[in-house]
Amino acid sequence: MRIFIAGIDGYLGWPLALYLSQRGHVVAGADLFLRRQWVAEMGSASITPIVSMADRLLAFAEHYRQPLAFYEGDLRDYAFVEQALREFQPDAIVHLGEMPSAPYSMLDVQHAVFTQTNNLVSTLNLLFAMRDVPGCRDTHLVKLGTMGEYGTPNVDIPEGFFEIEYRGRKDTLPFPRQAGSWYHWSKVHDSNNVMFACRMWGLRSTDIMQGVVFGTRIDEMNGDPRLLTRFDIDQSFGTAINRFCAQAVIDHPLTLYGKGHQQRGFLPLRDSMQCLTLAIENPPPTGDYRVFNQFEEVYGVTELAHKVQKVGRELGLAVTVHNLENPRIEKEEHYYQPDHQRLLDLGYQPTHDIESEMRIMLVDLLAYRDRIESLRDVLIPDIRWDGTRRKVGFIESQ
Amino acid sequence: MRIFIAGIDGYLGWPLALYLSQRGHVVAGADLFLRRQWVAEMGSASITPIVSMADRLLAFAEHYRQPLAFYEGDLRDYAFVEQALREFQPDAIVHLGEMPSAPYSMLDVQHAVFTQTNNLVSTLNLLFAMRDVPGCRDTHLVKLGTMGEYGTPNVDIPEGFFEIEYRGRKDTLPFPRQAGSWYHWSKVHDSNNVMFACRMWGLRSTDIMQGVVFGTRIDEMNGDPRLLTRFDIDQSFGTAINRFCAQAVIDHPLTLYGKGHQQRGFLPLRDSMQCLTLAIENPPPTGDYRVFNQFEEVYGVTELAHKVQKVGRELGLAVTVHNLENPRIEKEEHYYQPDHQRLLDLGYQPTHDIESEMRIMLVDLLAYRDRIESLRDVLIPDIRWDGTRRKVGFIESQ
Repeated sequence: MRIFIAGIDGYLGWPLALYLSQRGHVVAGADLFLRRQWVAEMGSASITPIVSMADRLLAFAEHYRQPLAFYEGDLRDYAFVEQALREFQPDAIVHLGEMPSAPYSMLDVQHAVFTQTNNLVSTLNLLFAMRDVPGCRDTHLVKLGTMGEYGTPNVDIPEGFFEIEYRGRKDTLPFPRQAGSWYHWSKVHDSNNVMFACRMWGLRSTDIMQGVVFGTRIDEMNGDPRLLTRFDIDQSFGTAINRFCAQAVIDHPLTLYGKGHQQRGFLPLRDSMQCLTLAIENPPPTGDYRVFNQFEEVYGVTELAHKVQKVGRELGLAVTVHNLENPRIEKEEHYYQPDHQRLLDLGYQPTHDIESEMRIMLVDLLAYRDRIESLRDVLIPDIRWDGTRRKVGFIESQ
Repeated sequence: MRIFIAGIDGYLGWPLALYLSQRGHVVAGADLFLRRQWVAEMGSASITPIVSMADRLLAFAEHYRQPLAFYEGDLRDYAFVEQALREFQPDAIVHLGEMPSAPYSMLDVQHAVFTQTNNLVSTLNLLFAMRDVPGCRDTHLVKLGTMGEYGTPNVDIPEGFFEIEYRGRKDTLPFPRQAGSWYHWSKVHDSNNVMFACRMWGLRSTDIMQGVVFGTRIDEMNGDPRLLTRFDIDQSFGTAINRFCAQAVIDHPLTLYGKGHQQRGFLPLRDSMQCLTLAIENPPPTGDYRVFNQFEEVYGVTELAHKVQKVGRELGLAVTVHNLENPRIEKEEHYYQPDHQRLLDLGYQPTHDIESEMRIMLVDLLAYRDRIESLRDVLIPDIRWDGTRRKVGFIESQ
């Protein structure tokens, strides 16, 4: 299949290009390198030293001996999107080209506006190009959403839609979303726009409500450091397990926000690649809008910190776990029971050995101990959901 | 109360300024006059000859002998929004400053992107200004949504939220939205953003899911033609009853889209003013996000066309009703039972004499027969939901 990756320079985009190429697919991608800028704006950098796209492409060519067309440009520019699709004629588009951080979106009005307009406009441009570029009407859009779209309702979370009875009548309706940041809401807005385009124009899409991804590598990097993906640890672009592992290797306490009783769906990077590929290789029928909840298992964040602590200690690291004042406004105690059956039905085989994955990560990150140490300052958040900006303090664990 | 009307030059904004001033409130408003441009872009113009804002303000001063501060500027410019709120210090903001047309938003990718970014950014700017401008944290945002956010589900439509039982557990959740155009989705996105801001920051808002408004006047125009509001009849900015009345006075068939069995909530312009004022004068508690469904009654569009026909014939007009090919993709037969209790509880007294209102409209519009005749071409739509643009044809009534 011919697969176009929007956001191919990112944490998921780059390994996905390798993973799909390994399986014999023809890959192209687009990027504007904004992720590198955003992380720099946070005073941070990728812990894994990532090379330029030119060098990535050179290394790719050496290992994979097949073309990888790269389009440098802005997905908010319709002419750019149109030309890329017209030239490449993809069977599937994986849209990873969005601003993916909740704290970044909560910084101030400019960042909130940027997040929502950047994410909505890129998706609208892709939808219109699929409708209007000859040969692309049947292209399958694999759109990255997030489990965070649903929030933490007091009922089970289905995969996108649910049948309800209300005042004696029945209907199947989109499951209500209750996101927790401007970023998460941008994903909800996108989901609604994609659902509408499929219904209006007979486009087809898989909307992936993905959990939190963690990991430093997939096998398809072939041990070549030029093929590594980025790995962020700052408050905006570093997510829970990744940040815990970085903290563990520099003897920094693992930081839980608030009580640390929050539960979320998680999955290793290699599982994300497997799941996205299953979605791509098993497209829905034309005109169908389907939703997958994509994660391996629900974990409590405290439980995950203790797993990192256990594995870290096995590696001789002195790991402590501390609670921080919560910079976010979120429920810290909540019911959480999301369905995640559809990818299993397609053949998803979860790794399930989360501690082995953590061990690989810690060993990988030990090689970059100095880089992490030099970025120690970015590990404690200061972007607060109430609009103020000041470092949060440690609190008693609860 | 001090009330700031965003979009004060529009169909609802201008009469609301008069209505509120008559009741003793102090009004200010902002506009960039985009509505005048959009209608011109549709090849049309207001049937009522509206004067410049300078002349409107002069007439206002003559009749009302109180200040009306006008801010010309772009609500997408945060600095503009911030300065206006800082200066005026409103108790309430009525946000009518959005692009309000479904067909206009469906024209092409540029219009879809414009609609969603214009509407979202203006609302985000107002929310952040309410949070950050000293003295505005407690300001009440009256945000105009639309009944079209809900679509036409097969169950009753509550006012914003509903309690459900799902797999044996209960929760109160936002009612799922199923909008039918990029414009309507922009309103859903806005509603979600406003709900989130209230939850995060303790702002307060009333989100008005308004039905289709019709009418040429309210009493507070005092018979002065300079105080008239605009009246549009083109496919994008002219809505059902207004368009029917314009068609009736030039002997053009009243045009129903498709079978004409669609049902919608409608209300006269004077009821819209009454309802908005009730919402303003009865603000919710700080931190509350409440939703009102705002309409007088649900009518079938065929039924309304026949009412216009009846009243028109009483006035000596030869009125016919014809079905057109439907340019939209929408359900033409559907269940429709939306709640609308909350405004009644606050004291809303519906006009309920829709035929009297139609008579006033027809008499008013007969004075502009030549203007309507000169715009006859804009009465048949050509913007289709499938992305093509060509005039729809007449079909047999069904």
